[in-house]
Amino acid sequence: MKELQTIAIQGEQASFHHIAARQYYHRGIEVAECRTFRQVCEMVREGRAASGMMAIENSLAGSILPNYNLLESQSLYIRGEVYVCIQQCLMALPGQSLNDMGAIRSHPMAIHQCSEFLEQHPYMRAIETFDTAGSAREIRQQELLGVAAIASEEAARLYQLTILARNIENQRQNYTRFLIISTQPPAFSDDANKASLSFRIGHRPGALVEVLEVFRRCRINLTLIQSVPIPGRPSEYAFHVDITWQRGQAIEKALEQVEAVSNGRRILGIYRAGELPYDHSGSESLK
Amino acid sequence: MKELQTIAIQGEQASFHHIAARQYYHRGIEVAECRTFRQVCEMVREGRAASGMMAIENSLAGSILPNYNLLESQSLYIRGEVYVCIQQCLMALPGQSLNDMGAIRSHPMAIHQCSEFLEQHPYMRAIETFDTAGSAREIRQQELLGVAAIASEEAARLYQLTILARNIENQRQNYTRFLIISTQPPAFSDDANKASLSFRIGHRPGALVEVLEVFRRCRINLTLIQSVPIPGRPSEYAFHVDITWQRGQAIEKALEQVEAVSNGRRILGIYRAGELPYDHSGSESLK
Repeated sequence: MKELQTIAIQGEQASFHHIAARQYYHRGIEVAECRTFRQVCEMVREGRAASGMMAIENSLAGSILPNYNLLESQSLYIRGEVYVCIQQCLMALPGQSLNDMGAIRSHPMAIHQCSEFLEQHPYMRAIETFDTAGSAREIRQQELLGVAAIASEEAARLYQLTILARNIENQRQNYTRFLIISTQPPAFSDDANKASLSFRIGHRPGALVEVLEVFRRCRINLTLIQSVPIPGRPSEYAFHVDITWQRGQAIEKALEQVEAVSNGRRILGIYRAGELPYDHSGSESLK
Repeated sequence: MKELQTIAIQGEQASFHHIAARQYYHRGIEVAECRTFRQVCEMVREGRAASGMMAIENSLAGSILPNYNLLESQSLYIRGEVYVCIQQCLMALPGQSLNDMGAIRSHPMAIHQCSEFLEQHPYMRAIETFDTAGSAREIRQQELLGVAAIASEEAARLYQLTILARNIENQRQNYTRFLIISTQPPAFSDDANKASLSFRIGHRPGALVEVLEVFRRCRINLTLIQSVPIPGRPSEYAFHVDITWQRGQAIEKALEQVEAVSNGRRILGIYRAGELPYDHSGSESLK
């Protein structure tokens, strides 16, 4: 029998990180539950987990910038990604209705994604917890009346809670991108078609174009760009970018050229792009 | 006697939005307190406030993307900006110590900025409220023992609370950029040296370079760029950018050219750039 791989996740069983881990690995894993992203990184760095799952951006809330800092400070790299549809449900012990709820518990990101629902129900006070599914578990274990959790449908099933409202996130097409992180430095392979980079450039007109020109010349597509201010250092700017390519493109050369035209470049990971969770009909748009 | 201008703010007296309003206007204003960003926008749109203050990015947490959507959906524009140093304090009723605290109340953004402090003090449960200063007020008015607020030093003074810990944000150089928003459409003036734009382009190599080339040719500097995914529409990408220029530069022409090379462009505001709050010695960096 094959040994199970340990994957560190933020949150616990039936959390969205757990769902992301199963979606990426399918089987053969056991999860190590962590309260914070920092703990996920530490478990991986110390070898107590083979890899970790870490949310990096959400389609409604944007990038989780502090997690980029964690990757760098803990010397970890991206070895994969997975996009997960996030459908938030409001759940409570059976026999209660929405009007009985005085408080809502969930992870800050989930509370943020449901801010409009919370504005429409101001009698419920939002309480931050370390996890969506963990909040559901506490409601069951402590038999909490008048308290609801925002969590996955799976968490409601696991803890036998009644779903009082479904899809309470602000916008329907809500997805989170999770990174698979490990200590293994990035390496090229035939399978890889995406990379995440950080680079710094001087703060002057055209400096960014010089970097992006490299990608254009090499026919490389950008899927993310995000400037990062460096307080106290207005002469320099930092950027995070994700690039994708087709098999056979001259990626190594492009990355060398980026190094040449920037003030410093770090490859955060080279990996296989995940599939976006929504159909590509173009009929609906967040914009 | 001159009539006071009404400025809608998120939060209440001694909140960081209030501090930002005073820093921008100096005097001659009265603030209208709002519980949410949406309420700030609605007050301005309905003419009940001359303008509003809205946080748009923080140096630790990044952009508040949903506020861009609010600007667009409420047909509001940016008419100014101000950067405010955010120094978070932990405060409680006098006669108590840090170890007496079982809960912390504050605005989600403040809780986020102090996540490391909270990780180091896991016995305190973080409870989200609509405001930093409002949490301080509640502790005073309801004489809450064992509960601390994260708020400004000014809020502690206003409500006569004892500061238990100072500068508890994760990183010292923590600033928030606030926008001054109004219904007035953007217009060029000699005083303006900054603009905020959104544009959409096709998702193909080089499309972004074509837009940025316009800025390079016109010697226009970028101070922010942020890609925004459009779920369900992988053939297009949206971007938010901020640009700055020197007096006399051909900005109108540049903006026309951006329109020509993009799939759609919106000017969110044309205004005078705010001053960054930190000294420019370059000796310290967040990176």
